[in-house]
Amino acid sequence: MQPLQSAGYDRAITVFSPDGRLFQVEYAREAVKRGTTSLGVKSKEGIVLLVDKRPTSRLVEPKSIEKIFQIDEHIGAATSGLVADARVIIEKARIEAQINRITYNEPIRVETLVKKICDMKQLYTQHGGVRPFGSALIVGGVNGKKPRLFETDPSGALIEYKATAIGAGRPIAMEEFERKYRDDITLKEAIDLALDAVYEATEGRTTAKSIEIATITTKDRKFRLLPDEEVKKYVDELLERKKEEKEEKEE
Amino acid sequence: MQPLQSAGYDRAITVFSPDGRLFQVEYAREAVKRGTTSLGVKSKEGIVLLVDKRPTSRLVEPKSIEKIFQIDEHIGAATSGLVADARVIIEKARIEAQINRITYNEPIRVETLVKKICDMKQLYTQHGGVRPFGSALIVGGVNGKKPRLFETDPSGALIEYKATAIGAGRPIAMEEFERKYRDDITLKEAIDLALDAVYEATEGRTTAKSIEIATITTKDRKFRLLPDEEVKKYVDELLERKKEEKEEKEE
Amino acid sequence: MQPLQSAGYDRAITVFSPDGRLFQVEYAREAVKRGTTSLGVKSKEGIVLLVDKRPTSRLVEPKSIEKIFQIDEHIGAATSGLVADARVIIEKARIEAQINRITYNEPIRVETLVKKICDMKQLYTQHGGVRPFGSALIVGGVNGKKPRLFETDPSGALIEYKATAIGAGRPIAMEEFERKYRDDITLKEAIDLALDAVYEATEGRTTAKSIEIATITTKDRKFRLLPDEEVKKYVDELLERKKEEKEEKEE
Amino acid sequence: MQPLQSAGYDRAITVFSPDGRLFQVEYAREAVKRGTTSLGVKSKEGIVLLVDKRPTSRLVEPKSIEKIFQIDEHIGAATSGLVADARVIIEKARIEAQINRITYNEPIRVETLVKKICDMKQLYTQHGGVRPFGSALIVGGVNGKKPRLFETDPSGALIEYKATAIGAGRPIAMEEFERKYRDDITLKEAIDLALDAVYEATEGRTTAKSIEIATITTKDRKFRLLPDEEVKKYVDELLERKKEEKEEKEE
Amino acid sequence: MQPLQSAGYDRAITVFSPDGRLFQVEYAREAVKRGTTSLGVKSKEGIVLLVDKRPTSRLVEPKSIEKIFQIDEHIGAATSGLVADARVIIEKARIEAQINRITYNEPIRVETLVKKICDMKQLYTQHGGVRPFGSALIVGGVNGKKPRLFETDPSGALIEYKATAIGAGRPIAMEEFERKYRDDITLKEAIDLALDAVYEATEGRTTAKSIEIATITTKDRKFRLLPDEEVKKYVDELLERKKEEKEEKEE
Amino acid sequence: MQPLQSAGYDRAITVFSPDGRLFQVEYAREAVKRGTTSLGVKSKEGIVLLVDKRPTSRLVEPKSIEKIFQIDEHIGAATSGLVADARVIIEKARIEAQINRITYNEPIRVETLVKKICDMKQLYTQHGGVRPFGSALIVGGVNGKKPRLFETDPSGALIEYKATAIGAGRPIAMEEFERKYRDDITLKEAIDLALDAVYEATEGRTTAKSIEIATITTKDRKFRLLPDEEVKKYVDELLERKKEEKEEKEE
Amino acid sequence: MQPLQSAGYDRAITVFSPDGRLFQVEYAREAVKRGTTSLGVKSKEGIVLLVDKRPTSRLVEPKSIEKIFQIDEHIGAATSGLVADARVIIEKARIEAQINRITYNEPIRVETLVKKICDMKQLYTQHGGVRPFGSALIVGGVNGKKPRLFETDPSGALIEYKATAIGAGRPIAMEEFERKYRDDITLKEAIDLALDAVYEATEGRTTAKSIEIATITTKDRKFRLLPDEEVKKYVDELLERKKEEKEEKEE
Repeated sequence: MQPLQSAGYDRAITVFSPDGRLFQVEYAREAVKRGTTSLGVKSKEGIVLLVDKRPTSRLVEPKSIEKIFQIDEHIGAATSGLVADARVIIEKARIEAQINRITYNEPIRVETLVKKICDMKQLYTQHGGVRPFGSALIVGGVNGKKPRLFETDPSGALIEYKATAIGAGRPIAMEEFERKYRDDITLKEAIDLALDAVYEATEGRTTAKSIEIATITTKDRKFRLLPDEEVKKYVDELLERKKEEKEEKEE
Repeated sequence: MQPLQSAGYDRAITVFSPDGRLFQVEYAREAVKRGTTSLGVKSKEGIVLLVDKRPTSRLVEPKSIEKIFQIDEHIGAATSGLVADARVIIEKARIEAQINRITYNEPIRVETLVKKICDMKQLYTQHGGVRPFGSALIVGGVNGKKPRLFETDPSGALIEYKATAIGAGRPIAMEEFERKYRDDITLKEAIDLALDAVYEATEGRTTAKSIEIATITTKDRKFRLLPDEEVKKYVDELLERKKEEKEEKEE
Repeated sequence: MQPLQSAGYDRAITVFSPDGRLFQVEYAREAVKRGTTSLGVKSKEGIVLLVDKRPTSRLVEPKSIEKIFQIDEHIGAATSGLVADARVIIEKARIEAQINRITYNEPIRVETLVKKICDMKQLYTQHGGVRPFGSALIVGGVNGKKPRLFETDPSGALIEYKATAIGAGRPIAMEEFERKYRDDITLKEAIDLALDAVYEATEGRTTAKSIEIATITTKDRKFRLLPDEEVKKYVDELLERKKEEKEEKEE
Repeated sequence: MQPLQSAGYDRAITVFSPDGRLFQVEYAREAVKRGTTSLGVKSKEGIVLLVDKRPTSRLVEPKSIEKIFQIDEHIGAATSGLVADARVIIEKARIEAQINRITYNEPIRVETLVKKICDMKQLYTQHGGVRPFGSALIVGGVNGKKPRLFETDPSGALIEYKATAIGAGRPIAMEEFERKYRDDITLKEAIDLALDAVYEATEGRTTAKSIEIATITTKDRKFRLLPDEEVKKYVDELLERKKEEKEEKEE
Repeated sequence: MQPLQSAGYDRAITVFSPDGRLFQVEYAREAVKRGTTSLGVKSKEGIVLLVDKRPTSRLVEPKSIEKIFQIDEHIGAATSGLVADARVIIEKARIEAQINRITYNEPIRVETLVKKICDMKQLYTQHGGVRPFGSALIVGGVNGKKPRLFETDPSGALIEYKATAIGAGRPIAMEEFERKYRDDITLKEAIDLALDAVYEATEGRTTAKSIEIATITTKDRKFRLLPDEEVKKYVDELLERKKEEKEEKEE
Repeated sequence: MQPLQSAGYDRAITVFSPDGRLFQVEYAREAVKRGTTSLGVKSKEGIVLLVDKRPTSRLVEPKSIEKIFQIDEHIGAATSGLVADARVIIEKARIEAQINRITYNEPIRVETLVKKICDMKQLYTQHGGVRPFGSALIVGGVNGKKPRLFETDPSGALIEYKATAIGAGRPIAMEEFERKYRDDITLKEAIDLALDAVYEATEGRTTAKSIEIATITTKDRKFRLLPDEEVKKYVDELLERKKEEKEEKEE
Repeated sequence: MQPLQSAGYDRAITVFSPDGRLFQVEYAREAVKRGTTSLGVKSKEGIVLLVDKRPTSRLVEPKSIEKIFQIDEHIGAATSGLVADARVIIEKARIEAQINRITYNEPIRVETLVKKICDMKQLYTQHGGVRPFGSALIVGGVNGKKPRLFETDPSGALIEYKATAIGAGRPIAMEEFERKYRDDITLKEAIDLALDAVYEATEGRTTAKSIEIATITTKDRKFRLLPDEEVKKYVDELLERKKEEKEEKEE
């Protein structure tokens, strides 16, 4: 796509191109595509969120690269794209979740929360003086016994997925999901599937330090960030698995 | 249509081109034309709304692709175009319907509601700092014993139809309606007609999973989203019908 | 007129061209010229408003194509141009008429109402952040025993006519009026004259279904939309007349 | 003057050109120059305002072409340029006149009123988001025993004249005034002079129907629109005069 | 200076050019340079303000061409440039003078008033949505026994002068002042000097009717517009003087 | 990067480029890259902040070149980029720190403060009428016994580092840190490491006068700007060390 | 620097160029560079401010060319660049100084005041609808026994100097200061140094009338504008000195 083609559009506000596209929204999607890979997988036992943190230097404190956020006790999100934009959305989401608790005295429904996030995103694509958000989110949570997993994009559109990925590794990760996802997987299998997908999407550059995993199970409906040692165990298993696969292939 | 032709128009606000057209509105219509196909058919027994959800992946939860919306007990809408824009309009419509109930203690008239939707759409085509809505809606409902079926477009214009379609499949679907629509069809026949039209418009890519159907009958004046098994029955009949037609043709 | 000639004008607000014209207003007039033909004729016995609805499909409910609007008990309007813009103006006019009734306890004078409509239109040609209205209106009504008939255009200018037409058929219809209009015509003759003019302006494509007629008589000062059968009677007479004329000519 | 020369100026607000001119104001003056001819003549006995209505069609009600406006009991105005703009200014002037009556319990001074009109006009040449008014006004009135006659232009400048003209016929009418105006003319002579000037300026296309005349005399300080028969008498005399002049010349 | 060189600057607000100039302010200065010539001379006995009214037609009432304004009892101003802009500034100055009287119960200092005028002018060169004032002012007055004479320009800069001129004739008038001004001149000599300067600056086109003179003396601290006969006397003397000079030269 | 490539973007607001970047934010980062070098190093015993002041003239009072700021008793910051922008951010940060003390009666957490800074920065990248901040900050502090060290950039992104550098010398300084940083260094070693890095980054142009050092130790949790003599001692040691290194190398 | 290089930047607001510069700020600096030369020198005994007034005509009252301003009893400023802009800043500074006296019952610290000035300047470089200030200031004053001397530029940056200069003569004056400034100079020597520098910077065009000098001594902490005779004495000494230097050189 060439910059000059759209010269004249998208200056004061996000406007339509002659073929009915919103350039600023599509460019914001490019910002997401340039981001790190984040994934979400739904199993009967709950939601798995997994992010690749791709740290660039040993001097960085990996914990400070926030890609997984807890929104409420029972809801979390994995993001990709502009990190400062993501933080604004997460902050807004947390407030909406608290308002719901105060107003109705019950945890917010995952779908309700995602719609509120998307309403804000849409607003930034139709009114002047602002640009769209350059972040996509995978929002997962549990209402009652039902795990829910949504993806939102810069336009404010939302889709519920069984398993999805955003960021640079999305095409490869989605292929992996298409091939391997089953409706009856356990939480453990969901974590392994997410790890398989991120392994492929990052061309094998997966280490215990580059991965962060969170779960929300149907059992306790609690967002839980897996401790480092637990992540390490899963990644070690992954690498073992991959090694075996490779050996099998080579045989 | 070439982008450069309209360079200079439509930047700060939606303005007229030398030949009296509003480019931004016409470009928003392009957004609708790129959308999935949604249809509405009016029968004496009530309104049929039918949408093609065209899911792209088995990983998507088809229920989350909202194209049919209930607005009030007796009114529903099928949309095409930008989904985030549609959601904003639907939300506004629901509020207007509730205001009517509270103010006049009776369900809103379908025409009144559609005009309120269109007034908002028009506003976004005449004032600065916003872009038009990139969504068309087919709004159907029943007032008293009278089924009503309207179509609104991004300009804020509205037309009442006996049968209509929006989105990518509109030209083919409208041809089908022109050929087959009769004023005295039953609700069952209206559903079949809508299925025939969407079948043609999607070049036969119609499955029970890709279709969503809602009805509002004159009998109970209730918006009803048909359950999956019922949709499947209708689609099976459709496919059977089409198979027979094909065999007949081949003979 | 070439788009490039005015590149640079009319972006943020409606500004003057070097030769003292307001481009946006002239472009809005183009929107009116592309509209369907609407006519108004004044007779001693009252006002006749007549519109050509030019329905494009048998699937359209002709009643939903609103081109004639009742504004108050004694005033109506026929419009041409952008229908959504017209609706906004009509809504504003209705409110002004009600304000007058409440404030002065008497029906608004037709001229007063038309000036209020035009003041709003003018505002949209001089201030930033908006575009002019893309609609012309023929407003007719009766004050006391006096029928009044006005035409307003996108600039906010107003002229009182004995007979006038707006939209695509204006040039031909005006010729017809120039040739045949007499000050002493009856209401019946005014209707026939309007039908003659629309017949010529639409090149004979006039049917009972494409025509809508409203009258406001000096006798009862009531806006009255003629029922379908009455319109049919007039159109049948018209077609008979035209047939005879043709036969006469051929002789 | 070529449009391209000023490309880049006058978009968001009325700004200066490199040679110190305000393009938008000069273009607004062009709008006035394209208008019909309006004239004002001052005599010791009072003010004469005269306008050429140049009706384009016999279907137009000449009374609806408002070019002469009463502002207060003792002040009137003749306009040229955009009629909708003129109406806005007149409305504002009427309110200022009434405010003066209420506040000081006396009729507003003509000069005070004209300055208020011009202050508003100036505002529209210096602030963003608006365009200048495309109308010039000749404002005449009587304070005490003193007749006053002012001309205002789109910049907000004002000049008091003994006799002046605006609109397309200004150059020719001003020549006529320069040649024939005397300080001691009577009101009758002032009317005849204005008619002579408009006759020349419209190349003899002057009829009783195309002319409207108003006077404000020092005797009663009342704005008075001359009835049709009185105008006809003056125009008949004019035409007689012109006929004689022609015959004399031909001899 | 070529228009195209500054294309791109000075649209939305008055901004700096690469070499640190404010184009809009410099263009506004051009508007002043195109204006008529106004002069001010300071003598020990008081201030002289003198303007050339350059009336274009015998139909114009010369009194209506306001170039000298009284601001307060003890302060006056002579202007050049856009007359409507000047009027706005004068109005503001009068209000400031009155506020000072009410607040401090004493006449405003000339310098204080000039600074307030300049603060307003500066504001219009730094903030968006407005253009600079296209007027320069010579403000003169007397505080205590001290005559003061200031010049302000469109940038909001101010300088106190012994004698100064603005408008088209400034270069020639200033030369005259440089040559002839003495600190100990009387008021009479100051008037003669101003007349000499305007005579030269207008190439001898000076008549009693084209000149307006005002004085504020240190004796009574009152702004006084010289009556026509007094002006005539001074101009007659001037013309006599010039005639003699010419004769001397010719000898 | 060529200016013309992005012509059309980033005028009214910070918008996306076709490849999903925010040009204004990236240009603001260039402003940071052109700044002087500032560094932060975390040791178990506390935080070290060090800046290179690069004074250009012996006439400058070095103390007035503020690059290290105390934000609260336990938090400091080292900046690079536009100094006026940095001051605005620091001012805001100080207020946030005080609000926290007043509201919760305890010192603000370093992370909380940095997020508030970044929220403000993000706001300036998404809304119209402002440009992003052209400053990066290294914020260091101690909560409880835990030293924290963050870096923020113009986008509003934040990362926690063990050791980091901003400004012109960043690439070289980071290489130095990558090579030499150890988790168990003492405060003294951290200072030496920072000095080594700035020495390399400024190509040896390090003097006691060009360096400013601040520490916040875990022991007393107090921001402390090292007095000149202490800085001199460290720099002397550095230069000695470098001299030895050089000699060793030369041997 | 060529105008076309930055076409597209700096229109609506002050934005970054691709290499991280703020064009409008740099252009404002050009406005300062085109201004007259102003200087400040710090001695142990106090601050010296000196300006070159460069009067263009003997008709100008030199006192009215304000380049040195008293801000508070103990603080003064010398300016260069747009004089109207400088006046706005000075006015703001005076108010800040008074607020400090009222709030804390003590004279404002010089540094505090300069930061407030710079905060305002920064604001005008980051927000839309305004342009940066085109003025630099040298602000000098005494707090306790400590003389302070700051320079601010259009970006809002501030630096404390021992001796500094702004305006056209800055490069030459700074060279002079670099060569001759000593920390232990007396006030008298500081005045002489400033005069030497301005003499060189104006190529010897220094006269008693073109120079204005102010001092704030550590002894009485009072801003004092040197009377004409005192300035004359210093300038006479300067000229004598320069003459001697010249003679020495010529020998």
